[in-house]
Amino acid sequence: MIYLDNAATTKPSERALKAAEKYLTEKYFNPSSLYRAGHELNLQLKEARKNIVSLIGDENKFSCVFTSGGTEADNQAILCGGKRGNIVTTLGEHSAVYEAVNEAKKRGIEVRFAELNADGSVNREHLLSLIDDKTSLVSVVHVNNETGAINDVAAIAKMVKTENEFTLFHSDGVQAFGKISFRLTKDIDLYSVSAHKIGGIKGVGALIKRKDLILKPLIFGGGQEENIRSGTENVFGIKCFEFAAIEKLEAINQYYDKIFVLKKLFCSLLDSTMFNILSSDNASPYIISLIVKGVRGETILHEVDDKGLIIGTGSACSSNGNKRHSRVILACGVDKQTADGILRISLSSETCEQEIRTAAKILNETVANRLRLMA
Amino acid sequence: MIYLDNAATTKPSERALKAAEKYLTEKYFNPSSLYRAGHELNLQLKEARKNIVSLIGDENKFSCVFTSGGTEADNQAILCGGKRGNIVTTLGEHSAVYEAVNEAKKRGIEVRFAELNADGSVNREHLLSLIDDKTSLVSVVHVNNETGAINDVAAIAKMVKTENEFTLFHSDGVQAFGKISFRLTKDIDLYSVSAHKIGGIKGVGALIKRKDLILKPLIFGGGQEENIRSGTENVFGIKCFEFAAIEKLEAINQYYDKIFVLKKLFCSLLDSTMFNILSSDNASPYIISLIVKGVRGETILHEVDDKGLIIGTGSACSSNGNKRHSRVILACGVDKQTADGILRISLSSETCEQEIRTAAKILNETVANRLRLMA
Repeated sequence: MIYLDNAATTKPSERALKAAEKYLTEKYFNPSSLYRAGHELNLQLKEARKNIVSLIGDENKFSCVFTSGGTEADNQAILCGGKRGNIVTTLGEHSAVYEAVNEAKKRGIEVRFAELNADGSVNREHLLSLIDDKTSLVSVVHVNNETGAINDVAAIAKMVKTENEFTLFHSDGVQAFGKISFRLTKDIDLYSVSAHKIGGIKGVGALIKRKDLILKPLIFGGGQEENIRSGTENVFGIKCFEFAAIEKLEAINQYYDKIFVLKKLFCSLLDSTMFNILSSDNASPYIISLIVKGVRGETILHEVDDKGLIIGTGSACSSNGNKRHSRVILACGVDKQTADGILRISLSSETCEQEIRTAAKILNETVANRLRLMA
Repeated sequence: MIYLDNAATTKPSERALKAAEKYLTEKYFNPSSLYRAGHELNLQLKEARKNIVSLIGDENKFSCVFTSGGTEADNQAILCGGKRGNIVTTLGEHSAVYEAVNEAKKRGIEVRFAELNADGSVNREHLLSLIDDKTSLVSVVHVNNETGAINDVAAIAKMVKTENEFTLFHSDGVQAFGKISFRLTKDIDLYSVSAHKIGGIKGVGALIKRKDLILKPLIFGGGQEENIRSGTENVFGIKCFEFAAIEKLEAINQYYDKIFVLKKLFCSLLDSTMFNILSSDNASPYIISLIVKGVRGETILHEVDDKGLIIGTGSACSSNGNKRHSRVILACGVDKQTADGILRISLSSETCEQEIRTAAKILNETVANRLRLMA
C-alpha cells in the first residue's frame, strides 16, 4: 500500500507513540489532582506547552492552549476572537474556519471573504481592502489544505496591523506546522495547529496565542488550560504531539528539501496530456493538487485504491457534506466541469522516491485505461 | 501504590488498549475519506456508536455524538440545548455544567439552581418548583461527583416533562455510566458520558441524544458526527471507549455488588471518632465522601500520598480555580470549617479488598498521628 493522503491524516510516529506510552499505562493520573503523581503530570504538560511553542515562536511571547484538534482551535480563534464588527477571511479557508465564520455571521458579525489567486493563495490587495476600523479579526490560512498554496502570513499580518492595529490576526497553520519553516511574529495573535497531521494522534491540537492576549473559553468547566479550555487534559495525546512535533521540526528543512525534490519528480513523471498540476511551484511540496482531464477524480481515486494507492480528491473534511465541487477549487477560478477531475496527492516526511515513482505509474496507467474505455 | 482517586480518572483498561491499538499503528486513516480503508473506519465508528448507545438505551431511539470528553458533551447539551427562556439545574453539578450555565446566563438565559439534600442529591420539590413554561432545559447530574449521591434521573425527567413537556432534559452521566445499572427513558433527551472514568482514555466522551432531537453544533467545520460535531474523529480513542464500556457494562452488576461490599468494609474500618462519612448508604459505592474532624483534607491527602495511598479532596476539576471550599459540599449544608476536612475516596471495578484494608489503616494512622501532633 502506498499512502499519499497525508494532508487528511498521517500515520502516528512509532517513536512518539513509544515515548508517550507510559502516559497510558503508568502515568494515567489526572494532572489537575493534588498528589505528587498528578502534579508531576502537570509539569509534563507545561513542558509540552513550552516545547511546542518554542518550535515556532518565542516562548516568552507565546503560549499554547491544548484543544481536541485543529478544528476546535480554529473555532475558538474565530468565535472567541471575532466578537464584534466584522471578520475578514478568505475563500480558501478549511471548513473549520469557513463554518465557524458562518456561525459568527448568524450571531450578528459581518463576514467578508477575500478572493483567491489561481493557485489558491489569497489576493492580498482584496483582503486588505476589506479591513476597516470595525474589523475585529482577520483569519488567513497559512498553507491551503487543497492546493498547498502558501500565504506569507507574517507579511500579511503586518499589513493587517497597518490597516487596523486593534484587529486580531489568526492563521490556521494545520498544514504548515511541522512542514514549512516558520516563526511566529509579533503581528500574529493566534495560530492553530494539529497533532495528527504530523505524526501525532487524532483528537489533539493547540491554539497558540500571544501570551498577553485574553481569550474567552469555547468550552467551560474545571478551568484547565488557565481557564481557557476546560476538560481533563489528554496527557497521552499531548505528549505524543510534543514528541512528534519535535521529531518533525528538528529536521524540518531536510524533510522539506527531500519532499520538494519528490514533488518535482512526481509532477515530471505524470503524463501531461492527461494531468494538469493546479498547485504552483512555490506551494508547499507536501500537497499536490491535480486535475485529471475528462475523468471524475473520484472514479480515479477508487480505481487506484484497488491497485494499492491511496490518494484524496480534496479535503477529507468536505466529504461529509456531499458537496460535489470543492468551494476552494472553484474559488481558484476552476470551472465546475474541470473541478470534477480534481485529485489531491499529499506527502509526509516518510514518503520515499519508490512510492512516488509507483504512484505516478499507477495514475498514468489508470487514467489512460479509463480514457480508452470512455473513447 | 494504592490508587483511590478513580472518579478523577481511571487506569485505561489493558484489554481495551490492546484491542484498539491497531487504530494507531495500522488503521490510522481518516474515516471521512473516500477510499476503502477510510470507509471501513467509518463503519467502525458506526459500530462504536451503536454499541455504546445500546449499553444504556434503545439504539433505535438514541444516537451518540462523540466529543472530546464529558466536559464538551455537557457544554454542548447546555449551550446548544438551552437556547431561550430559562435553564433549571442543581447546586450539585460538576463544573462542566455549572460553568456552562453561568456562560448561558451571560448570553441572556435565566439560570435557576435547585437546592441539595444533605447527601448531595437534589431537592426534587425545589427543582420542580423552578420549572415554568419558559424553561428550555433542565440539567440534573446522575451521580454527584463529590458525594456519590444518585439522582433518580428517569423519575425526575418524567416529572419535569409533566411540568413542561417542551423542556429538554439533560443529565451529566459521567460518574454513573459503566458503574450504575441504568437505562435511558423516553423523557431523557441528552446524556453525557466520558471514557477515561471507566477505563477508556482521556480526550474522549459522548453526548447521547434522542435520535429525533435536532441539536446545534458547538464546534463547526467538516461536518463530522452528522454535522453536530466537526473535527477528524478520534478513532483510536473512540474504539478504546467502546471496548472499555462493553467491559464495564457487561459485568456492571457484579462490579457494583463487589464495590458495594468494599465501600461498607471501608466505612466500617475507619475510626468513627476521627471520620464522618458524608456519602449516604444508597449513594454510588464508587465514591465515598469523608470528613476528617479538625484536620485539613489537603494535609491528609499529602501525608497519605507519602505512604503510597492516592486519594482526592473533591473534584480534581475544581483544583484549578484555587477555591478553598467545594461549592457542592457547602450546598450540602456543611459549614466552611467542616468542609476543610473533606476527602474523596473513589473506587474502580478493579479495586480489591486488600487495598481497601490498607487504605483505611493508613488513613486511621495518619489522622491519629496528625491529631497527636496538633494536640
